[in-house]
Amino acid sequence: MRFLIIGGSDAGISAALRARELAPDVEVTVVLADDFPNFSICGLPFFLSGETPDWHKLAHRTEFSGIELLRSHTATHIAVDDQTVEAADRAGTTKRLKYDRLLIATGAIPAMPPIEGLNLEGVYALHTMEDGFRIQPHLDRGVRSVVIIGSGYIGLEMADALVHRGINVTLVGRSQAVLPTVDWEFGKLIEGRLAEHGVEVRSDSVATGIERSGVGLVVHTSSESRANADLILVAAGVLPNSRLASDAGVELGCRSSIRVNRRMETSQVNVFAAGDCAETWHRVLEKNTYLPLGTTSHKQGRIAGENAVGGARQFAGSLGTQVVKVFDLAIGRTGLRDHEALEAGFSPCTVLATGFDHKAYYPGAKEIQTKITGDQRTGRLLGAQMIGNWQASIAKRIDIFAAALFHGMGVEDLNDLDLSYTPPLGSPWDVVQAAAQSWTNSGCRVFSTSTPR
Amino acid sequence: MRFLIIGGSDAGISAALRARELAPDVEVTVVLADDFPNFSICGLPFFLSGETPDWHKLAHRTEFSGIELLRSHTATHIAVDDQTVEAADRAGTTKRLKYDRLLIATGAIPAMPPIEGLNLEGVYALHTMEDGFRIQPHLDRGVRSVVIIGSGYIGLEMADALVHRGINVTLVGRSQAVLPTVDWEFGKLIEGRLAEHGVEVRSDSVATGIERSGVGLVVHTSSESRANADLILVAAGVLPNSRLASDAGVELGCRSSIRVNRRMETSQVNVFAAGDCAETWHRVLEKNTYLPLGTTSHKQGRIAGENAVGGARQFAGSLGTQVVKVFDLAIGRTGLRDHEALEAGFSPCTVLATGFDHKAYYPGAKEIQTKITGDQRTGRLLGAQMIGNWQASIAKRIDIFAAALFHGMGVEDLNDLDLSYTPPLGSPWDVVQAAAQSWTNSGCRVFSTSTPR
Repeated sequence: MRFLIIGGSDAGISAALRARELAPDVEVTVVLADDFPNFSICGLPFFLSGETPDWHKLAHRTEFSGIELLRSHTATHIAVDDQTVEAADRAGTTKRLKYDRLLIATGAIPAMPPIEGLNLEGVYALHTMEDGFRIQPHLDRGVRSVVIIGSGYIGLEMADALVHRGINVTLVGRSQAVLPTVDWEFGKLIEGRLAEHGVEVRSDSVATGIERSGVGLVVHTSSESRANADLILVAAGVLPNSRLASDAGVELGCRSSIRVNRRMETSQVNVFAAGDCAETWHRVLEKNTYLPLGTTSHKQGRIAGENAVGGARQFAGSLGTQVVKVFDLAIGRTGLRDHEALEAGFSPCTVLATGFDHKAYYPGAKEIQTKITGDQRTGRLLGAQMIGNWQASIAKRIDIFAAALFHGMGVEDLNDLDLSYTPPLGSPWDVVQAAAQSWTNSGCRVFSTSTPR
Repeated sequence: MRFLIIGGSDAGISAALRARELAPDVEVTVVLADDFPNFSICGLPFFLSGETPDWHKLAHRTEFSGIELLRSHTATHIAVDDQTVEAADRAGTTKRLKYDRLLIATGAIPAMPPIEGLNLEGVYALHTMEDGFRIQPHLDRGVRSVVIIGSGYIGLEMADALVHRGINVTLVGRSQAVLPTVDWEFGKLIEGRLAEHGVEVRSDSVATGIERSGVGLVVHTSSESRANADLILVAAGVLPNSRLASDAGVELGCRSSIRVNRRMETSQVNVFAAGDCAETWHRVLEKNTYLPLGTTSHKQGRIAGENAVGGARQFAGSLGTQVVKVFDLAIGRTGLRDHEALEAGFSPCTVLATGFDHKAYYPGAKEIQTKITGDQRTGRLLGAQMIGNWQASIAKRIDIFAAALFHGMGVEDLNDLDLSYTPPLGSPWDVVQAAAQSWTNSGCRVFSTSTPR
């Protein structure tokens, strides 16, 4: 049996590895458009900052034994009827590849704003290793100022990275505050930290055009007349790269991503999809969404790989868990925010709680702000957001919330979790639980002693 | 209604606060033997090290409004028939206190080894604030060497604390390696770190007697002839302080701790018990154990307080989750270790996995060693242990395992958790999940594609 995989990033390689683990006799081939199988593109900001000078280190792994890698080949056509894929190398020479099971893991492409000037020299998206290789020498030629269009997590990481290099940064974002995946107040805290590091933040501002001006570039924005720069980075989100699939008659779903069931099967027999090109089952919303994240790609790929070789495993679902480090801050979220929960038909109530990462009497305690969202009808935990120092275990505390959400726990039930404690690393009630108690005591939900638990 | 609580530490005060929250009309009185309600005795090592110079800061809280605190009173007798408690102040004057609901939260007492010399001047246990106040001035009088008897977490924290003060430490422990609550290999790693800091470790060694020798003290041990010291600390575990309860006809259970059901009710009507004097329901073993921990005391106290004023909440159970910091190491555990699981009738398999706290390409990555124990019959997660740098989020990663254990997850199911990721703070598969994959791929359990998940 031949298991063919289009795409050599997280989902594709995870699928290949899992198939190889479970079914050593299956022939596994990965068609990848570049020469960088399973590289950590999330690491590009650190390559560009100079913190990770050797790009080879960005490889999640370098060992692919038993997996055939067809490098620098782009899949150009899928024929589901005769189960073949056409792939072309960079010279345009094509091959036809037969499959018994196919995984489409073509990822995403950068979403470019509908403005003039995107094709000017010095304007870049940052999505692939090759994007990184184009930007780095340009930065090395003495770039002094950069405008970043987009204030999501990649925009923020790049702002941090460029400041690390001593470059002046202007960050233009359309949302009310940076990092629109968390609540506005947290975004404003991040903006404060950006400003302390000299980043000029223009939130609530849309880039309306780019033009060359002398030796530099100018970005016109809706809020300010212009922002000058030697280089412009566009980090305005991504779109699913689903064209190849749809041309082959594979049904699309949310935001034109490939429709999949929880086994990662598409509408076409023997054709799976996973990663940033595909829909994502949301465990709290209990429906498919488009929520491209590297962690999800790994999971979906692993499940697709398992099922392609005879498994019947379901994707357990995403909670949209994310974390980002910006200077000395870490900001994380999981589950639904208040307005998202409301849209989904819950009766959310959200409370802000502050606490310390460990007992304040032990030196070095750091404040953490937690927003916790629960459903007032059922008491169920719906989501959490946290912000604090990056060494305050924000990421792993968000993961405690994520584990609780995964199991549909009630907010109050978080107090039942037997979490670890020692004064230098926590509190008898961890901030996760203290936030839950704040929620319970806030009047979000009336406690009823008449209900046995 | 009067809710009377004997004991003003974690369990007693948590109960008082919870009762106050839920039933403002109930009269809540706490009888406490000293003047330190809800102080963090876990913080004593940091007070003695000088890291927390002001002992007042050890108070978990200082606000007890609506709660009557009867300080420096020791309960001497409980009469369950007429629902009264007799309490004596330090002058011996007694009062009789009526109760409608009683909570016994008398905590634990230090376990003293059966040896001569414990009553010599300069020999201390470390269990109460007052112990701390006796030891501190003695240390300040220029103590140069200390022998610690007991190499559990308090012994280790005190070794760290005394080294911090420049004192020579000898650590005598009866177990094969220090910290017998984790596996031997981890204990040996800790011993290595202790030795680097000049601590003389004598494991597999029993203190057989203490005597005065000139101006100093001598500890005789089974392994070495003697260890000299200016001061001796006994940190050899604790025993439940259950005498008052048993004298009142309250039934005892495991290791003479007070028998309770999961509502924290004792054998006597209207009498609850919680904290280090009481039994602890173990969520994996599904039976009562004696497992005194501050986190559990807080939880049990909160539940007892809720139930005393009319609630019907059950204690969800302990997993024995613990963490300790020793120099730059953090060591955590949750659930069962291999031999504990075997004794309990499981078919355990345990795997050691190593990984990094975050992507190795980002500066500062720290290695974490994880031991993961699963049941080979069912695939269920049974427990985990971790060791690594104290800033590698060991404590909160153990908590992810604890949350998974709480819900009876399978080892393989850990891969379904949607955990956070950014290169400076984690990996697409967190070390928690990578350890789970190591377990699955180790041959611990044969994967079966025929079982739908």
